[in-house]
Amino acid sequence: MVRAEVIAIGSELLLGGVADTNSLFLADELLTIGIEVRYKTVVGDDPKDIEAALLHAFGRADVVVTTGGLGPTGDDLTRKIVARVTGRRLVLHDQTLRAITHRLTVRKRPVTAEQTTQALIPSRAQVIPNPVGTAPGFFLQQKIKDKERALLCLPGVSMEVQHIVQEGGSVLLEAFAGKAARGTLIRRRLRTFGLVESEIDARLKGLCQAEKNAVLGLQAGTYGVDISITVQGRHPESAESVAKRLERAVRDRVGEHLYAAGNQTMEGVVALKLKAEGLTVAVAESCTGGLIGQRLTSIPGSSAYFDRGVVTYSDRAKVDLLKVPEALIRAKGAVSAEVAQVMAEGVREQSGTDLGLAVTGIAGPTGGTKEKPVGLVFLAVADKKISVGRSHVFSGDRDAIRFRASQAALDLLRRHLSGK
Amino acid sequence: MVRAEVIAIGSELLLGGVADTNSLFLADELLTIGIEVRYKTVVGDDPKDIEAALLHAFGRADVVVTTGGLGPTGDDLTRKIVARVTGRRLVLHDQTLRAITHRLTVRKRPVTAEQTTQALIPSRAQVIPNPVGTAPGFFLQQKIKDKERALLCLPGVSMEVQHIVQEGGSVLLEAFAGKAARGTLIRRRLRTFGLVESEIDARLKGLCQAEKNAVLGLQAGTYGVDISITVQGRHPESAESVAKRLERAVRDRVGEHLYAAGNQTMEGVVALKLKAEGLTVAVAESCTGGLIGQRLTSIPGSSAYFDRGVVTYSDRAKVDLLKVPEALIRAKGAVSAEVAQVMAEGVREQSGTDLGLAVTGIAGPTGGTKEKPVGLVFLAVADKKISVGRSHVFSGDRDAIRFRASQAALDLLRRHLSGK
Repeated sequence: MVRAEVIAIGSELLLGGVADTNSLFLADELLTIGIEVRYKTVVGDDPKDIEAALLHAFGRADVVVTTGGLGPTGDDLTRKIVARVTGRRLVLHDQTLRAITHRLTVRKRPVTAEQTTQALIPSRAQVIPNPVGTAPGFFLQQKIKDKERALLCLPGVSMEVQHIVQEGGSVLLEAFAGKAARGTLIRRRLRTFGLVESEIDARLKGLCQAEKNAVLGLQAGTYGVDISITVQGRHPESAESVAKRLERAVRDRVGEHLYAAGNQTMEGVVALKLKAEGLTVAVAESCTGGLIGQRLTSIPGSSAYFDRGVVTYSDRAKVDLLKVPEALIRAKGAVSAEVAQVMAEGVREQSGTDLGLAVTGIAGPTGGTKEKPVGLVFLAVADKKISVGRSHVFSGDRDAIRFRASQAALDLLRRHLSGK
Repeated sequence: MVRAEVIAIGSELLLGGVADTNSLFLADELLTIGIEVRYKTVVGDDPKDIEAALLHAFGRADVVVTTGGLGPTGDDLTRKIVARVTGRRLVLHDQTLRAITHRLTVRKRPVTAEQTTQALIPSRAQVIPNPVGTAPGFFLQQKIKDKERALLCLPGVSMEVQHIVQEGGSVLLEAFAGKAARGTLIRRRLRTFGLVESEIDARLKGLCQAEKNAVLGLQAGTYGVDISITVQGRHPESAESVAKRLERAVRDRVGEHLYAAGNQTMEGVVALKLKAEGLTVAVAESCTGGLIGQRLTSIPGSSAYFDRGVVTYSDRAKVDLLKVPEALIRAKGAVSAEVAQVMAEGVREQSGTDLGLAVTGIAGPTGGTKEKPVGLVFLAVADKKISVGRSHVFSGDRDAIRFRASQAALDLLRRHLSGK
């Protein structure tokens, strides 16, 4: 495998409480083109530190990807230091200058000298345009200590990193790696909801022992447990067949708890199912405060299946908007299976959609009792014929409980749509 | 300042899609005892890579903190490599062995040979017990290339890192740094919304020139632009007075665009203002799909001010739930200043709250026209007397536009509450 190092540049990543998440995206993206991120380094906006990090990286990695330090301010040092380290001049790139000028003019912002420094590119580097920001990325190759190295420099803003990599950077890196690639690495991700990590672990026991060079990894989070299958090998075909065999076995063992593969999300899967069956949904939320609606509408084209949501936070809102009988709230409490069911039916009827989805619960940190603890959540899904309920007690803080409740609600809808 | 490097060890941090967040905690924690994290490195569970990373770190940092690789499996190599690099033997630490045996026995788990390897500690290192897990941390000091260095080794699990640092690691590091500490470092964060990075940059121009050892940093994101003030100095009092002077000057120059300080969020500030004034709010959302409601209810105790939200995604939902006249939608379009205003008034009236907040816009990626491009968002806030509207054209992808719209809506509410 071609080895890569990601260098994240920016003092805010050291002391600003900001995590470097670009390197996660880059590791996944590079893996798909046969490049393995072996090292990650974070340095601040200090010229000596950046230079030393670059030199160190060229000493141990074939491919170096930097993020950050390409903006217009005095703190943005990357292009200057790359030029110095690679012994190149900085050249004004006309096309980039025009793009920057155009972008700023359209936005009625002044074209300052600082802004134009973003069009300075090390000589003989390949510019990769930035469709969503000012500073472009650039790519260069150079022999360093008798070895051919590749360097890709990207801005620090995540969205810009993703666009530049997917619309140019990835192709250039792949062309470089193709010459040197020494093997293959396959990674699959299968996403589950409804089993805890130890249950998954028990179900998968022994699965890898027959397969050399294959690893199963579990990662638990508020979204459920993700299972990663990693297979390394010299021959793409045999690695692929091992990965396929393992994936089939994992799917068998986790069954209907598997909701997605790869980077697919629960809301993405639910959206696909709703669109495929031409169904519409309306949502009634209490403790999640709008999170389910927000997730269902995060998918482009969501107006095809999402009609409306109501966030009935107060009891009065539940009575007004969903016709939940006051007597029912008094008798069972606003957080109850009965109220969840009436909410799901109520929002479906008022909106005339095919499906209604509802959640009511106690997100905490206060408001719990012995009978109804913090984390208790009731869910219901209703169609024209029946409504189905479910309850959970989730652990974690307020954010985690709310997210898990939204995940469980969407999972309930997914299972309903699959008839599981 | 004493310089530190954090080395996060673990292949899952390179390829597993898992971000290293321990280093964020460590950076903050070390800063309070006068140690500045200048470098972060991530390496996988490869003995050569770990050894090289340790040696490189000792070459540039006074303090090295490692996380990960202290567990019982074959992948856990940290203690072995630390012993090799520092020329020490691994010694069985009796007290740790007893603690591990006790912990496993209580949990009815077998005391295996693998588990006991966690009691092997480099000679003359100080053991720091782990109250929430099996593997303890350890601390050692050693002269490397004529310089006294400190090394703190921690497990990878966040909760264990926090306990070990706060219950021992921090004190040991402070004692080490005390000998060499060369000053103090203060950091403040001021958060703004409504100005772009270059505008803030222009407003702050020249502010630092009079102050030696002071740095202003800007970080732009979908939430706005954060300004960080960092002051380094020999004397805590003088550094504090410089920081205060700078903070006052920054506040002066960004004025009403400043919405929060430190880790406060926009929704947190709005919640405080609503609670302080005893006011309630209801929200009508379209393109944000529930995000504003979700953010307003993410604060514990939000039922004091949040009554309900409606997500009127379809035109029919706007007519049904908010009494938006069909003729108005036909004449002006669902995405218009007029509809936003009627939505804000409608949700306020139906809920009987003091305030109504509404947003309607085009989140994209499709659905834009020349007159109404993707990113166009109309906002309105209504009280009993008046309603105030505002419009923006946000850039970015669907997620960014939706988040920016929610941030602008909350900011409009904040300004309304402040009378600005």
